[in-house]
Amino acid sequence: MTDRQQKFASGKKVLDAIDGDAGTKVIDALADVSPELAHQVVAWAFGEMYARPALAPRERQLVTLGILTALGGCEPQLDVHVNASLNVGLTPEEITEAMLHAAVYCGFPRALNATFAAKKVFAERGLLPVG
Amino acid sequence: MTDRQQKFASGKKVLDAIDGDAGTKVIDALADVSPELAHQVVAWAFGEMYARPALAPRERQLVTLGILTALGGCEPQLDVHVNASLNVGLTPEEITEAMLHAAVYCGFPRALNATFAAKKVFAERGLLPVG
Amino acid sequence: MTDRQQKFASGKKVLDAIDGDAGTKVIDALADVSPELAHQVVAWAFGEMYARPALAPRERQLVTLGILTALGGCEPQLDVHVNASLNVGLTPEEITEAMLHAAVYCGFPRALNATFAAKKVFAERGLLPVG
Amino acid sequence: MTDRQQKFASGKKVLDAIDGDAGTKVIDALADVSPELAHQVVAWAFGEMYARPALAPRERQLVTLGILTALGGCEPQLDVHVNASLNVGLTPEEITEAMLHAAVYCGFPRALNATFAAKKVFAERGLLPVG
Amino acid sequence: MTDRQQKFASGKKVLDAIDGDAGTKVIDALADVSPELAHQVVAWAFGEMYARPALAPRERQLVTLGILTALGGCEPQLDVHVNASLNVGLTPEEITEAMLHAAVYCGFPRALNATFAAKKVFAERGLLPVG
Amino acid sequence: MTDRQQKFASGKKVLDAIDGDAGTKVIDALADVSPELAHQVVAWAFGEMYARPALAPRERQLVTLGILTALGGCEPQLDVHVNASLNVGLTPEEITEAMLHAAVYCGFPRALNATFAAKKVFAERGLLPVG
Repeated sequence: MTDRQQKFASGKKVLDAIDGDAGTKVIDALADVSPELAHQVVAWAFGEMYARPALAPRERQLVTLGILTALGGCEPQLDVHVNASLNVGLTPEEITEAMLHAAVYCGFPRALNATFAAKKVFAERGLLPVG
Repeated sequence: MTDRQQKFASGKKVLDAIDGDAGTKVIDALADVSPELAHQVVAWAFGEMYARPALAPRERQLVTLGILTALGGCEPQLDVHVNASLNVGLTPEEITEAMLHAAVYCGFPRALNATFAAKKVFAERGLLPVG
Repeated sequence: MTDRQQKFASGKKVLDAIDGDAGTKVIDALADVSPELAHQVVAWAFGEMYARPALAPRERQLVTLGILTALGGCEPQLDVHVNASLNVGLTPEEITEAMLHAAVYCGFPRALNATFAAKKVFAERGLLPVG
Repeated sequence: MTDRQQKFASGKKVLDAIDGDAGTKVIDALADVSPELAHQVVAWAFGEMYARPALAPRERQLVTLGILTALGGCEPQLDVHVNASLNVGLTPEEITEAMLHAAVYCGFPRALNATFAAKKVFAERGLLPVG
Repeated sequence: MTDRQQKFASGKKVLDAIDGDAGTKVIDALADVSPELAHQVVAWAFGEMYARPALAPRERQLVTLGILTALGGCEPQLDVHVNASLNVGLTPEEITEAMLHAAVYCGFPRALNATFAAKKVFAERGLLPVG
Repeated sequence: MTDRQQKFASGKKVLDAIDGDAGTKVIDALADVSPELAHQVVAWAFGEMYARPALAPRERQLVTLGILTALGGCEPQLDVHVNASLNVGLTPEEITEAMLHAAVYCGFPRALNATFAAKKVFAERGLLPVG
């Protein structure tokens, strides 16, 4: 295995553990249009950055939910990361609370769009109603 | 009625007067995923903030259209607030003019996306062609 | 006068009436770095877009305040447009109310930054305290 | 032909050469809701700004791809401008490379959304797989 | 004490506990320009939203750091919330790690600007070098 | 030299060639607050991403200028990248033209702020007046 392949393999383990199928689908969909983007998401974003121990996975997800809610237009990424948040142990109540909290800092439209993206994931996983 | 219920009831009156059915649908859709977000939209955003007399409803809608156009990715909120703008007396011409004006300050892509969100509402209410 | 010069002259009248000195300073500062940007701000943004009668100047300013507050990082433009808002008849209370309203849609940080940009202008024009 | 009609005609030539059918569809869709927005896109954005010789069309498209990727929520505009980028000679590899590059400056979610918008256009034009 | 004064008092306790002097300075600076914005920050944002028990203060700060980093142009708010993050027990290493993590999702420029805002606070509190 | 040190060294060469002193100052300023962010900017952003041959440096800079102008609040990064743009052969006229072009897609305030950031760099390098 080359150094590059090793990095991909080690990032893929992190991606699988956190994002599960939702992450793999994104990587597969990139194969025919931008294989290097797929490589960088896996090898760098997950293998090198996400894997760092300075924050727990649960804490990284709270930061990520804050960022994706604030950016707006990231519904596909919220789909992946709401799943990831559940996978690392955040409860549906904690996820929607993070989005409610976001209303204070980036306004209700962003909070609403993120909450409806979460609702879709919760419904797929049989987690509705919340609370 | 508790203080909390009273605040909700008083905000609901403002929401109904301004947003009509479009607003109620959003609140209902939140019931099973984030009832507190629903409460805050109604009790705080409409009951406490929107109801303030310092700006007329028509003027609040112009500010809101400017914000939602600039943020981008707020098509669901533009659907509600283009309806609200018509409900408080803005004409289709004034709504599209506000979005044309926005092109100067946040560029044509945001202005175009907002205008097509408005077109959808105008079509539903039989208001096309504009002017 | 060429057609281009005429457009500039007619836009300059609108700019002077609305933005006063604050607008002229921006145009002058562009002369040695991007004279075409200066021309387009005056001839197109003010001469062709701002001058349209479909919204009153006061209403255009409310839309503009909403956009600039939402975009963030537009303190220099808020300086110009808070001045412009006062020039076309908005009161300091209406301007700060528009920014308070913005907190609902784009969050408190943007509302705070815009309000402090307004405070600077109000102080320069001897309009503090507001209300 | 009035001056206004002439400006439209001259902008329409630039639009047709660069955006082809994708651009015309947007203009047509605006006819019944905001004809002035259609006019300004054609006469000003394409006729006056895009046509300037200081940057080659290929270079303008690289700047535009950077902006649209960064803004987010501009999938309809990316559809038009990925087509335009191909029309002025950028290869699919250069387009996806610009979006990969964008990941560094505006993050992976924006880069991913832009790349999937490009993938849709490449598929429609029989250009997949890339590279 | 009226209901309104009580809400302010109870929010002020949360604000003092979390933001300390940095928060109070912002509230004081609003007194002469937008007292209602000051009231809403204290009574609603802190008294009603921040005080909710569903997320620990440390977790709310991680979400907030993510949002403020992503929004950009929020250096004054980062100043307050980096202080708040330290006050509720996040270490400088955890704060800079959250901002490094943000580079993946909103790009290096936002991560850099947030990190330099944090550096300013760390320096004021004698916490440099980090780690 | 470890693999990590090698990556840093090879990225540092790209950074030096493109950004010169302006880039080095940013890296140095990170040393005591977030050395890992410094490492990733150099080793990943420049060593792995910027160095890819699929776009010429001049073309990467045009994409970057588009992104930084659109994001807003990136004046420190524009300072670095206007310098970088000059270093890789873009003329002041081409740089300001890219920013003028951006006005169409992200509005005049962003274009103005970017142009004034460019003016500062041009003045420092004795390149004013432009054209």
